[in-house]
Amino acid sequence: MQRKSFGNMQCPIARSLERVGEWWSILILRDAFYGLTRFDEFQKSLDIAPNMLTRRLNALVEEGLLERHLYCEKPPRSEYRLTQRGRDFRPVLLALLEWGNKHFAPEGASVVLLDASTGKKVEPVLVDGATGKRISEAEHVMAAGPAAGEPIQRRFAGTAPRTAPR
Amino acid sequence: MQRKSFGNMQCPIARSLERVGEWWSILILRDAFYGLTRFDEFQKSLDIAPNMLTRRLNALVEEGLLERHLYCEKPPRSEYRLTQRGRDFRPVLLALLEWGNKHFAPEGASVVLLDASTGKKVEPVLVDGATGKRISEAEHVMAAGPAAGEPIQRRFAGTAPRTAPR
Repeated sequence: MQRKSFGNMQCPIARSLERVGEWWSILILRDAFYGLTRFDEFQKSLDIAPNMLTRRLNALVEEGLLERHLYCEKPPRSEYRLTQRGRDFRPVLLALLEWGNKHFAPEGASVVLLDASTGKKVEPVLVDGATGKRISEAEHVMAAGPAAGEPIQRRFAGTAPRTAPR
Repeated sequence: MQRKSFGNMQCPIARSLERVGEWWSILILRDAFYGLTRFDEFQKSLDIAPNMLTRRLNALVEEGLLERHLYCEKPPRSEYRLTQRGRDFRPVLLALLEWGNKHFAPEGASVVLLDASTGKKVEPVLVDGATGKRISEAEHVMAAGPAAGEPIQRRFAGTAPRTAPR
């Protein structure tokens, strides 16, 4: 893309995208959730050029999504482990998984989410944490939050629900 | 990134990423959910180069996420509207929104999700659609699905829960 920076945008989606970096970063995070920790494991899984992998791992460490741990001093070898911030990215991966299975897997699902205790396939759905109601476009709208600056307030002017957010 | 194609990978996350294209595409989809439909609206919102915007819109139409509608014949002008496939991408955007608000908004949330009928702020959480149980790393694991080829089966060998998926 030769991306311009989204960092000065207030939009939390843009900020998230900037922090994740590039597609490779998302696949690295996916592999970290699969339990991979070492440079050569990621490289083998992703078939990615070493210099690119180094760059993406460094960026993920810098953004606080992965932590580097030295597991061997001579020669120096590091492991990469998910931080809490990295772990909190899991819903994004699961949403991508669902969307991919629904729309781009004509042969059927290759990767699924299972309930570990029952082994049953799970369909992850987004609900309102407080009420359990399914999130839908009709009933749940995005709106300017308390910290919104003027551009974001303008964007949502007229689209907010009648009742003010509390 | 000068991305190599992930299309021949079986992983649904990789396939999703390939279909979305680039960060710009996700921000275009976000704006489409905000109700923008016209070229100049996207351009103004995103401050993106016209040739880049044309390319991203064309790609999103090609991948079936947006539909092009001619709203003016002379001069020819098109609107871009979300398809069902595009609308199904919303959980990914909401997951990115949550993650951004949690980790990259030290000043507070600038964009929030509201219950349109009550105006209350909503925390979207992923649950098992069948049982309502919150999705967690401890209790919900990714595993090879029925259509998994050998590489994906190998990746998950030994990590699957004891009970077979049904």
